[in-house]
Amino acid sequence: MIESVTLDDTIAIAVGAGILGTGGGGSTYLNRLRLNKELRSQGRAVSVIQADDVPDDALVCAVGGMGAPTVSNEKLQEGQEIKRAVLALEDHLRRKIYAIVIGEIGGGNALGPMITALQCGLPVVDGDSMGRAFPELQMDTFMIYGLAPAPFALADAHGNVAIFPRMGSAEQAEAFARSLTIEMGGSAGLVMPVMSGAEMKATIIRDTLSLAKRIGEAALDCRARSVEPAETVAALCNGEVIFTGKIVDVNRRTVEGFARGRLKISAFDDFNQQMEIDFQNENLIARVGDRALCTVPDLITLVSLEDGEAIGTESLRYGLRVAVLAMPAPKELKTPEALAVVGPRAFGYGVEFRPMAGDLL
Amino acid sequence: MIESVTLDDTIAIAVGAGILGTGGGGSTYLNRLRLNKELRSQGRAVSVIQADDVPDDALVCAVGGMGAPTVSNEKLQEGQEIKRAVLALEDHLRRKIYAIVIGEIGGGNALGPMITALQCGLPVVDGDSMGRAFPELQMDTFMIYGLAPAPFALADAHGNVAIFPRMGSAEQAEAFARSLTIEMGGSAGLVMPVMSGAEMKATIIRDTLSLAKRIGEAALDCRARSVEPAETVAALCNGEVIFTGKIVDVNRRTVEGFARGRLKISAFDDFNQQMEIDFQNENLIARVGDRALCTVPDLITLVSLEDGEAIGTESLRYGLRVAVLAMPAPKELKTPEALAVVGPRAFGYGVEFRPMAGDLL
Repeated sequence: MIESVTLDDTIAIAVGAGILGTGGGGSTYLNRLRLNKELRSQGRAVSVIQADDVPDDALVCAVGGMGAPTVSNEKLQEGQEIKRAVLALEDHLRRKIYAIVIGEIGGGNALGPMITALQCGLPVVDGDSMGRAFPELQMDTFMIYGLAPAPFALADAHGNVAIFPRMGSAEQAEAFARSLTIEMGGSAGLVMPVMSGAEMKATIIRDTLSLAKRIGEAALDCRARSVEPAETVAALCNGEVIFTGKIVDVNRRTVEGFARGRLKISAFDDFNQQMEIDFQNENLIARVGDRALCTVPDLITLVSLEDGEAIGTESLRYGLRVAVLAMPAPKELKTPEALAVVGPRAFGYGVEFRPMAGDLL
Repeated sequence: MIESVTLDDTIAIAVGAGILGTGGGGSTYLNRLRLNKELRSQGRAVSVIQADDVPDDALVCAVGGMGAPTVSNEKLQEGQEIKRAVLALEDHLRRKIYAIVIGEIGGGNALGPMITALQCGLPVVDGDSMGRAFPELQMDTFMIYGLAPAPFALADAHGNVAIFPRMGSAEQAEAFARSLTIEMGGSAGLVMPVMSGAEMKATIIRDTLSLAKRIGEAALDCRARSVEPAETVAALCNGEVIFTGKIVDVNRRTVEGFARGRLKISAFDDFNQQMEIDFQNENLIARVGDRALCTVPDLITLVSLEDGEAIGTESLRYGLRVAVLAMPAPKELKTPEALAVVGPRAFGYGVEFRPMAGDLL
C-alpha cells in the first residue's frame, strides 16, 4: 500500500487510472500535468492514508470533476474549483474536513482529488467509490449503499458555488448537478458526498489508488521492454484481452452533458470481424454481432496496442490500433443493489449481466 | 398605507397585482386561494410594515415563485417550498430573517410572499423590487442598484433545496436558477436576495402592496357598478387605454423555462386595425403596424373588458375581449442603469425607450 504520491509516481498512477477509466473519468494527461505542477509548487508529496486510519467521527468528502470529457479536454479547469467547493461546504457545515476521498479512480478523476488534497493541506484516502469510472452520480458505492447525497456542492471556474443542503435521492442530485454542470459550461467541480469516517469505511472500495499505480507500473515496464502491455495489464486485473484491431468508425455526440456514442473496431486480419462498443462517457457494452462479450459493471477499456495507454471516449478516432481489455468489476459493484444501479439494464440494455470470473481486486 | 392583510383584502390585492403583472408573475387566482387558506388556518392577518420600519442591520429577504406561468398554473405548488428555502438560508447564515420582502408585485408573486410571511411568523414589507413583473432575476431594483445576488436559495416541491453562497453576477444567478428551475419541473420557490435593512431601504420601490390594493379596489368598485374598469384603472396608474378589441391570434411556446410568444388583437369595428404584443412571461412591447406604442419598462397589461380582470400570458386565447392598458413604470426603472437591464434593448428590440408621461407611483 502506498503512503504518499510524489512526482515520481504520477505517470504510473495516470496510466493505471486511465486503464481503470473504461474510457471516461476525464483526461489523465491534463490532470497529471496539473498534479505535477501542484506537487512542485507545494514542494511536498501527497499524503495517502488507509481508509481504516480515518476516525469514525471524522468528516471526509469525495471529490471529482463532473461533465463530459469531450468538454473538459478543451475547457481547462481554472484549478481551484473543487477547493472552493470543499471550503464552501466546511463553511456551510461549520466543520473541518479530515481527508479527501477519490470519487472515481478511473481517468483524470483519480488525480484531481490529490490536487485538492494538496491545496487543502489534507491527506487522500487510498480507495474510491467505483473501482472504475461511471457517468452518473448515483453510480457509486456511497450512494448504492445508502449514504445521504446531501449536502453536496458544485463549483465553476468563475468562483460560483452551489450547495445542496437537502436532496431527496442520489438520482435527484444527479439531475440537478447535471443541469447545473451544463449551465456551468459542461464541466464543474463536485464535492459529494460528505460523510463520516464510519460511513466511508463501510462503503468505500479500498486500495484502488494503489491498484492504479500497480497497473501503471506494469504497463510502463512493458513499454520499457518494448512489449505490448495489453495482456500483462489484463492479467494483473484478472481480466483478458477480448479484441484487437483498428477503430473503423466512431459516432460520438456531446448531448445532455455526456459524450455518447458507439465505436466499431475491425480485426486486423478480417475487416468483417468487428466489435461494437457503446459508451456514455464510459464504455458500457462490447458486442460482436449480437453477442455481448462484456457489459457494465465489468470494465471495458480500449488501450493503444503499442504502449498500453488508455484511450478516452473523447479521443477515439478512425485508425487507432487498439486492444480491448475486459476486466471484472470489484465485488462491491456486483451485488443485487449495485446491479440495479450499474448493471446493463440500468443503462437501458435488455441483457443480463454475465459477470466475468473473479474480481478486480 | 396598509398595516395588515386579512381575508377581506385578498381579492382587491389579487386584482390589482394582476394588473401590475403585465401578463406575468404567476396566477393571482391560485395564490389568492392559497393565501386565503393560510389566513384561515393561521387565524390571523398578515402583518405589513413599512420599509423604513426595518432596522438597518436587520436581515430581510425577497421571495417569489420562479418559472413559466404556463407551468405553475398546472403544476401546483406543494406549499412550503419558499418557507423551506428561507429556513435553509437562515440555517446556512446562522441568522434570523426579520421580514419578508415581495420580490415582484405583479401577478401571484404579490401574494405568495404573504403566505411565506404567515408560515414563518414574519411581517411583510409594503413594497417590491419591480413595481410590476419581469421575467428574469437581474431585472429588479435590488440587482440593478448593486446588491449582491448571493447567497440565494431555490427549493422544489419535493424538499430539495439549493443554496448559492457565491455568485459572480445577477445574470449568472439567473442562468443557474433558470436551469435548475427547469430541472425542478418548470417552477420553483426562490429566495433572493438576502440583504440588510439598510440595503433594502436604499433600493426597494415603496408602497406597491398598497398600490395593488388601491387598484384592485377601484376595479372591484367599477364591477359593482357595472362599469368597464379599464379607464378607471389606467387613470389611477397615470396610464391610458391604448387599444380595445378581440384577441385574434396567440402564438405561445414554453421554451427555456419561459412562456414566450406574440398575440394579436383586432379592433371591434375594423378587423384590419390590429395591435401586436410580444411577451416573455410578461408583455414586452405593444405595436400597431411598425409603431411601438408602449415598451418595457412601462407596463402593458391586458384586462378583460367587462370586469377589468388581468389576463396572464398563460391564459391568452382567441376571442377574449380585452382592453390594453399602458402605464408608466416607477421612476426607479427609468434611470440609465435600469434601462440597461429592463429597457427594450435588453430584451432584444432595436427601439429606444420612449417613456410615457408620469410615473406609476
